[in-house]
Order: sequence, then structure tokens, then C-alpha cells
Amino acid sequence: MIDSSARGSASGNRIWQPIPLTDVAIDDRFWAPRLRLNRERTIPYQYEQCKETGRIDALRLDWRPGQEPVPHIFWESDVAKWIEAASYSLATHPDPELDALVDGTIALLAGAQQPDGYLNVYFTVVKPGQRWTDLRDAHELYCAGHLIEAGVAHYQATGKTALLDVVRRYADHIDTVFGTGPGQKRGYCGHEEIELALVKLYRATGEERYLRLARYFVDERGTQPYYFDLEAAERGAPGFFEPDLTSSNLRANREYNQAHRPVREQTEAVGHAVRAMYLYCAMADLAGETGDASLLDACKRLWDNLCSRRMYLTGGIGTSAANEGFTRDDDLPNETAYCETCAAIGLVFWAHRLAQLEPDARYADVLERALYNGVISGVSHDGARFFYANPLASRGDVTRQEWFGCACCPPNLARLLASLGAYVYAVGPDDVAVHLYVQSSARLTVKGQTVTLRQRTDYPWDGTVAIDVAVEQPTTFGLRLRVPDWCRAATLRVDSQDIDLPHNVERGYARIERQWRGGERVELVLPMPVERVYAHPNVEADAGLVALQRGPLVYCLEEVDNPVALHRVALPREASLSAHMDEDLLGGATVVTAQASIADDTDWSGTLYRPEPSTARPLSITAVPYHAWDNRGQGQMRVWLREDGDTHSG
Amino acid sequence: MIDSSARGSASGNRIWQPIPLTDVAIDDRFWAPRLRLNRERTIPYQYEQCKETGRIDALRLDWRPGQEPVPHIFWESDVAKWIEAASYSLATHPDPELDALVDGTIALLAGAQQPDGYLNVYFTVVKPGQRWTDLRDAHELYCAGHLIEAGVAHYQATGKTALLDVVRRYADHIDTVFGTGPGQKRGYCGHEEIELALVKLYRATGEERYLRLARYFVDERGTQPYYFDLEAAERGAPGFFEPDLTSSNLRANREYNQAHRPVREQTEAVGHAVRAMYLYCAMADLAGETGDASLLDACKRLWDNLCSRRMYLTGGIGTSAANEGFTRDDDLPNETAYCETCAAIGLVFWAHRLAQLEPDARYADVLERALYNGVISGVSHDGARFFYANPLASRGDVTRQEWFGCACCPPNLARLLASLGAYVYAVGPDDVAVHLYVQSSARLTVKGQTVTLRQRTDYPWDGTVAIDVAVEQPTTFGLRLRVPDWCRAATLRVDSQDIDLPHNVERGYARIERQWRGGERVELVLPMPVERVYAHPNVEADAGLVALQRGPLVYCLEEVDNPVALHRVALPREASLSAHMDEDLLGGATVVTAQASIADDTDWSGTLYRPEPSTARPLSITAVPYHAWDNRGQGQMRVWLREDGDTHSG
Repeated sequence: MIDSSARGSASGNRIWQPIPLTDVAIDDRFWAPRLRLNRERTIPYQYEQCKETGRIDALRLDWRPGQEPVPHIFWESDVAKWIEAASYSLATHPDPELDALVDGTIALLAGAQQPDGYLNVYFTVVKPGQRWTDLRDAHELYCAGHLIEAGVAHYQATGKTALLDVVRRYADHIDTVFGTGPGQKRGYCGHEEIELALVKLYRATGEERYLRLARYFVDERGTQPYYFDLEAAERGAPGFFEPDLTSSNLRANREYNQAHRPVREQTEAVGHAVRAMYLYCAMADLAGETGDASLLDACKRLWDNLCSRRMYLTGGIGTSAANEGFTRDDDLPNETAYCETCAAIGLVFWAHRLAQLEPDARYADVLERALYNGVISGVSHDGARFFYANPLASRGDVTRQEWFGCACCPPNLARLLASLGAYVYAVGPDDVAVHLYVQSSARLTVKGQTVTLRQRTDYPWDGTVAIDVAVEQPTTFGLRLRVPDWCRAATLRVDSQDIDLPHNVERGYARIERQWRGGERVELVLPMPVERVYAHPNVEADAGLVALQRGPLVYCLEEVDNPVALHRVALPREASLSAHMDEDLLGGATVVTAQASIADDTDWSGTLYRPEPSTARPLSITAVPYHAWDNRGQGQMRVWLREDGDTHSG
Repeated sequence: MIDSSARGSASGNRIWQPIPLTDVAIDDRFWAPRLRLNRERTIPYQYEQCKETGRIDALRLDWRPGQEPVPHIFWESDVAKWIEAASYSLATHPDPELDALVDGTIALLAGAQQPDGYLNVYFTVVKPGQRWTDLRDAHELYCAGHLIEAGVAHYQATGKTALLDVVRRYADHIDTVFGTGPGQKRGYCGHEEIELALVKLYRATGEERYLRLARYFVDERGTQPYYFDLEAAERGAPGFFEPDLTSSNLRANREYNQAHRPVREQTEAVGHAVRAMYLYCAMADLAGETGDASLLDACKRLWDNLCSRRMYLTGGIGTSAANEGFTRDDDLPNETAYCETCAAIGLVFWAHRLAQLEPDARYADVLERALYNGVISGVSHDGARFFYANPLASRGDVTRQEWFGCACCPPNLARLLASLGAYVYAVGPDDVAVHLYVQSSARLTVKGQTVTLRQRTDYPWDGTVAIDVAVEQPTTFGLRLRVPDWCRAATLRVDSQDIDLPHNVERGYARIERQWRGGERVELVLPMPVERVYAHPNVEADAGLVALQRGPLVYCLEEVDNPVALHRVALPREASLSAHMDEDLLGGATVVTAQASIADDTDWSGTLYRPEPSTARPLSITAVPYHAWDNRGQGQMRVWLREDGDTHSG
């Protein structure tokens, strides 16, 4: 049973609420240009891509056998994520042209909806009569989930209910098909997504049956007998992806779908990384809405496993292209790292949800790590090329692409960037929290009072953050400021009065509780020396290697700055590391320079092995933020560099 | 045209002739027990495996559709290599029981031969009527080649012509089917082997048409229009391995079969490594028999590429399991190294042939490297388990197997070991050469005189080699002793008189020319300190790493001796390295010990990344010869270790 008190601002365990997107205005020099580019270039570009590839027109349901292209099983999800991104953009930046484009697309979606509420082009025109016969691989509920998220976002952004009505009817239909009642299918989707979407729909509509359905999908997952086996037996055929037997075998592994055991018994982040993140998001959402501690406990176990054994330094997750996901603990190879953009985005989603349940900065620390590195690496500086995989090293054979046959990542990036404002602040019953340092203004409501925060900073290039507090009337609340895990010497002052940080930090947040009268200036200084970073000795791929980080940004060497064989470069442990702002680099970025060494081959004379080590010669190196790589021509890249003790230097 | 003078002991460029197997008696403590094990355990064991798996009985041609197992397209090659191994064994160690087993098997083969001489079980009973329709993938000529090698070996070992007659009739048939004449197929085999076999058949029979046919196959290879395309078009179906589309696509790459261009224009070792080696063997054979310098030149280019860019420290070759072969220059990852046992054996074959053409020790240097490391690693100390792939690092997930569905490696090992005596010495027009240091007695004929060499040594455990020369009558000839490339301080004496080595070494061989009267003692001392070995800076996989070698033996760490996470181990550059004979280790082996360090994780407390490097604590390590690994339980293994400068030590 769902605790009926679990709604509204104090629902269940969800004690920290994000504030509405429209109540935050970002005006810094790091994010603001990116958000503008996302709005002005990426979102229109992605519509064009959807249009050109047939994703939009497929909604007319006029495909006939023999025509190319054949609508793909998850095309709707791309269109839905684009609508969601466009909706967030409309919420903060009204744009009649975009509004009309969205409305037109929604009209096509509405037209594609069947009389019973069902809405999926592939199973309407390509494989009619085969609805819900392959939940494991066919992505129907996944697509439905994205449509629902789009419907909620569009409604919240514009107040229009056109798409919300469509997705409610679809959700109502799904609610009749799936469940434990007589004649219902006891299934769940092979690609999680609908669960978190149904929670959003519940929050937007107040309809508890959507929350119940989300909970059903989460609770049913991984129970025995395994639904995917039952449906395969009933179907009598392997699925829609045959004869790709390798993929089929891979999908037959229940861990691939996080369906190997009930979710509360899962302890390791396994399988397809995006699917895992979306499931974990729903688990956190349900914990928040229902107060189900067993789901939060499962989330925390999975979080610990992910963050201590299976996450790249960039916040990228998913080691292997074969399953687009996890392999085993500590298996974090750099060049072959998959690190799908969507998976890092999914980690941001999950971290954001967990931060709503517990005032522990570790969630926002990881959110920040992923956001500033493995997420925004996914889009080019011109906003129109995208990485699907985000490896931590390259021999020069990868570069961003204009689009993908499976185009999940580009619109996922667009919707995250368009909604970034919602990730910066949060409000609890007695507190206001600052999760991210982004120059911005925010209006928050705490204890029924409106509080305005004006945050000034040049983060992530500089770690000085000034927050001016304004209140309508004097209000007592706690102001929580995250002290990032990368920072080792933070200082805090309020109106020039030093705050003793070690005594005022709770689980990673500095907390200042007082009666705020308005006009106070809070100054947090987060010194940003360039740091060497090392991986746990369990990580074989990084043994003997060092990475560079400054503030939240992971750095890398790129061939364009260092035109040598990058694997030959070694950084002496004692080398001094300098940072300076290069205003000409992609709109301005802090670069790191150092005196390193490079193995020489001039005295090798054709031999492959020899008893003398290579000599090394000095090499000045320049490192740039990882997210910025591959914007100045294709070439080699490395995050982890060999570290030399002094005997290696020539 | 073939130079008709190209026969006999002075044929063409083949100036260095190996001596008959029966004229060498090996009695050392390294090889003699291995050869006995091969004779007494491995060869009988492999017959049993062939019998149990159906390879022998398939020759009765009584398979009917629906029966299991279905005869495989290259089963005959396993049987043939077993006969070849057994024949070499019979040549040096007569054994009536084995002799009868071989005769019985040959009778089955003879019974399987078709009236026109054709002999292939698969295309006789499984796919009748489809002979020669898929030269690229179906291995018919490959199997024929192994049968021919077996026929020649059996004849030379026993004087019996039963199998020789069979394979001559088969070769005569093949000679009618393939060639440039009217109605003949202008094809060649996707898996080279028949070419070198036909040269052997020519040498055994004096029939020039076999040499011509070998030359046709080599010359035709890679010419346009591509035969594999023509036969595919004619066949109208992809081949016999469908629906394995991945493999099919891979095989469609012409480099896979070394058929991308004519052999004389090939400059890089590409594709399937075993195929490459067998082709290159035939090219060297043909150069030797015909004096065709263009083939020798091609061999030398390919040799340089292989040995300077594509060979593992163990003499293993072939980087990737995907194509069982080569990838690109300097791509030598250790854990995923393929290094098929057959490929290292093929490298021994090729090196041996090139050493017959040029008195350059680089060929025997590589032969020795492969033989002592990547070849004999292929068989267990009990003679009955085998490696197919021989990686240079393992997390503990690989171990030798009892047999393979594709069982090319085990009998390939057996035939090489059974014929090892033929690799130790060679005779040129005026010289005797010692390629390998193995305690043995050898009878050689140089300038028409019989010379007996008695070599005493504990090689490879000790580098002191004493050779007593005996002659029937005083004879002037040069005695060439290879100075191994791993040795940096060789000394040489004849009857206690020092020979100035630097002035008497020609292309890697110390040469002592004199009138030998008999009773001379030649003493070569090859000091064997434990050496650190480094890879060329181009090899990314070995950057910052060091390997240990002593004499010809590459060493490795095994988990059984070093029960730690081996990737955490680092060897300081200054650490002293000790060697001692461990008589209890697998029949006696020299082990290497050193004081290394291991990264500690006790102060990591669950963090995956941190700004402080791991501390290191001292660790005593024990390294064993690479070939000996995986004989004392399954576990981790590493050849290349991280090398630490002194700042890394704790």
C-alpha cells in the first residue's frame, strides 16, 4: 500500500525538493553560453535530424511494407526527449516558433494514438498485432516512459495539456494491460524508463494509480518465474533482433536488464548502464514517495558499489561496448571505456534523486563529476556533434558524430542542459541547499518565506563563490553549501566573519543556521590547485598512472596541443603543475601545463626489445579539460598519464 | 621456369642444410625429458583424442546424415599431423606398437581415397559434389598439405611408401585440377599449407611438377581478379561457415588470407598468423629451391616487419583472437594476446627455412626465442594439456585444455618436438653451424667428410657450452657457433686458446675455420645474468613496464609463487635480481627472485580515486620461466611488470 501522506512537498523521505526550473536564472560564463547554444543550435538541429531521418513523419502512420526507412522500435523516444528538451527551453525562454514546432509534433503524436490509448508507431504499422510480445527487447514501455516524461514537461512548461492528455490515456491503457490482476500481463520493460516516468506523471497529476503502476513494475522486476522466459515461450521466437545471435545471447543474460533478482536484493551495478540508472532513479523516486526504506537501502548499496568500484574518473560508467554496460569490479580500461553519454546523464538523474532523500554531499559530488566531465563531453563546442561513447583515451580513431541510428544520447543531453537550473539548488523543511556552484539568481521558498540567492562565481575556473541572501522578512533557516570532495582547503565567511568549517560541515555540507535578515554575503572559497589523482590499486588499468584534476574538471592531453605519441609521455611525480586561463580556447578555458618527459626512440635502431630502457627527453605538455577534447580536430587523447619516479627522466 | 639444377644438397640458395633427425641424439636435461614425454605420453594421448572425437573413424566414410559427430572439414589435418609426429618419433625411437597404429591409420586414409586420388572425408560424405567450391574457407588444400607432409615424414622415417603413394596420387590429382591450363581452376587455398608440403614432396620424390605446383599456388596468390571473389560468385552462397556473419565478414578481408596482393608485393605480416607463417615458409622454400631472389627479398621485408613491430617477447605472434592474427604495428597487448601455439611453431618453421638461405643468426635467434617460450608454453608439464592462445598476462581465467574442437595446436607441438633434433645443427658447403645449444651428439657430413660433434651443456640453465670435435680424417671447415642476441659478454676458446670474438663474429655467428684434426674442444661461454628487458617506445602496452629474461628464457610471475594481485607489483629499476636452480620445480628450473614492491590499499577506505598515490610495501617476488606457467594450478600470471623509479617505493 502506498502511504497516502506521501504527496506534496514533505512527501515520504523526499525531504529535499528541487526548485522549479523557472525560478533559477543562470548567467555565468561557463554554463550560460552552453545553455544558449543548446537552445539556439542543438534543439533546432535535433529536430532537423529527427525530421530528416523519418522519425517525425513516421508518426503519420503511413508507412507501408517495402518503404525505407522502416520505423524503428524506439524512434518515439528520440522525439519525446526532443519535446522534453524543447519544453524546458520554452519554460525559461519562450519562443513562439519552437512552441509551434512542438505543438505540431504533439499533434502528430496525438494522431498516432490508437483508440484504446496505445501509441507506438512500430507496433502499429510495422508489426501490428504483436504489441507487448517482447517486453525484453522491444522497448515499448521504454518509449511510453519517454512520452510520459515529455507530456509532463510540456505541461509544466507551457500549461498546455495536449500531450499530457495523450500520455495519460496511454498510461491508463498500460495500467489495464500490466499488473497482478486477472488477465493482466505480469511483465516489465527490458529497458527501464517507464517507472520513473510514471512517478513524474503521478506528481504532475496526483493520480496515485500511476505511482502504484510504477511500484508494480519495480517490485515485479527479477521475480520468479522470470517474465522474459515466459514471454519468449509464449512468443515461440527469440525476438525482434534476430538473427543477431550474439546480441540475443547477451540480452538473455538477466543481469543485462537488471532482472536477475528482485531489485531490493541487488547489490552490484550490473548490465546495461543506462537501464541500470533509470531503474535506480525509479527506486529512489519510489523510496521518496512511499517512504520505503528497503528501496533506499538498495539504492545505497548499489551507489556504493558503483562509486567505489565501477565509475570512471570522469563520472562515466559502463566499461564494455558489448553490453553497453558494466563488467566486473575495478575493470576500468581507458581506451575501450564505453561510458555512454546517456549513462553519465542517468547517473546525474540518480544522484539528483538521492540528494533529495539524504543530505549527503556525496551525491552532488558525483553529480558534479559526471556533469562537468563525462556528460558535457558528449556534445561538441558547436552544439551539433555528439559522442555516444566517451572513452578516457584515444589513439585518434574516434570523433563526435552528427547523429546516430540509435540516437538516444543527443536529445538526452539537450533535455539535461535545458533543465540544468533545477540541479543547482534544493529546499528542505528548514534548509536551503546549494548543490552546484553556478553564477545564478534563484528564488526559493523555505518555511513559507521567499528567499532569493544571488550566486556570483567564475566556477569551474575559479573556486570563489559569493552568495548574497535576500529575504522578504527575517527568516531562520539553514543555508547548506556543498564542500566539494575535490577541495581540501575550503574557507567560509559570512559578512567577513570566518566560519570554522570543520565544525560546521555535516556530511559534506557546510551549514549556516541563523536568522537571515537579508543583505548577508556568504563567501565560500574553494582553492583550485591542479591536483594529481590516483586510482585505487585494484584498478589495473590505472596502475602506475596519474590523472590531473582542477576543481571539478578532469584534464586530458590532446594531440593538437601535444603532437607526440601520447602513450610515450610520462609525468614526473615532482613536476610542478601550472594553470592559466586561455581566453582563446573554445570561449575561454583554464589549461594546465607541466614539464613532462617523453620516451625517445632515436637510439633503438629497429629493435623491438632490448636490455636498456628508453631514454627520456623533456617535453612541455598542455592539458585541457576532458570535456573540451575533440573540438579542434581529431587526434589522440589521454586522461591517465604514466607517472615517473625520478630515475625515469633522461 | 624452374632451374633444374635446383635439387640436391647445393640447390639454389638453400646453402645451409639441416641434418637428418636420425643423426642427432639429444641427451640433455631440458629437452630429453620433454621429448620422452612427447613420445611416451603426448603422442599416444593425441591418438586417443583423435579416436574418441571421431577423427579416426570418420576415415571409414560411413557417416550418414543425422549422425553425430559430423566430420569436420579439417579433421584430416589433425590426423595427418599426428602421423607426422609419430613418424619422427619412430625415426629416432622405433616402437612396433606405434608403428602398427600408424600403419592402421594410414590404411584407413588409403581406404578413404577416392578413385581419382581425392581424399577428404567432409567433401566425400558430408558435402559430396561440392569439392573445391570454397577454397577460401573450406581448408581442402590445407588438409591435403598436411597429408602430404605426413606421407613424406612417414616415408623418410620408415622407408614405407604406403602413405607416400596415397599423397602422391592426391597431389597428382590436385595438379590436374589447379593451374593455368585450360579447364583448370586458377585458385589457391585460403589457409596456406599445401605449398610448403609440395616442396617437401618434391624433395622426397624428385618430381619437379610438385615444385611447379607449389610455385603456381604461391605465384597465383593475391593476383587479380581475386579468385575468392570469382568462386563466391560461381558458388552463389557465402560459404560453409554461415550464418556466422562476423567470421564471414572477417574472412572476406583479403589480408586475412594474405591474398590482398601478390606475395612479392607484400610488406607487412598481416591476417591469420598461422596462415601467414605457412605461406612465408613456402616462399622461403621456393626461394631456396629456385634461386628466386624476389621471394627471399619479400621474406626479408616481412621478417623485418614481423620481428621489429609485431612479435611478442615470447616469440608469440598474432595480437587478436578475432582474426587469430595480426592487427597493426606495435599493437601488442599482453592479456588479450592471441599468440596461437601454431603461429609460434610456424615462426620456428619459417625462421629455420630462412636460416637455410642466409648465414644470419637473427633467424635462429628468433627461432630460439619462440621455441623456448611461446612454443613450449603450449604443452603442460604432464604432456596432456595444451594452450591454444598463449597470452603474456592472465587474471587467472585461462588454463590449458585437454583438447580442442579445432585441435591444430596439440599435434603441431608433437611434430615439432619429435623432430627437434633437426633444428640444432646445419651444414653448408664449407661450414658446420650450431644454431641451438642442446646437449647432444651429431654426425654431420661436410665436404664429403663425416664430422661428429659432441655438445655438452646445461643450456638453457647455464650458458657454458663445450663442443668436442671428432673427424674421420683432418678436414678444413668453418665451425659457426651462434652468439645469441641476448648475450652481451660471450667468450670463446678452442683448446684453451681464447678466440677474439668481436673479430670472428659474422652476422651473429662466431666462425672458427681451421683444419680440424679431431679431439679439439671448443668452449663457448654465454654468461646468463638475469636481464631486464624493455620494449620499443612504440609499444603502448609495455610503456613503463619491464620484463625479465635469463638466457633465452623469458620469465613471468605466477600467482602460485606470488599470491597477490600481480598488477599491483612494481619492480624498482635498481632492485638486484638473483637466479638459482630450484631442483624441485617441474623437474628443475632456474627461478629468479627480487625485492619488489606492492601497492597497498589499507589506507584507501572505499575511495576509488584520491589525490595521494598509494603507498608501497616491500614484496619478495619469484619469477619462473614463462613456458612453465600454469603447471601448478590456475592463477594470475604476468610477463611485463611495472617498473618503479625510487620515488614509488614506500
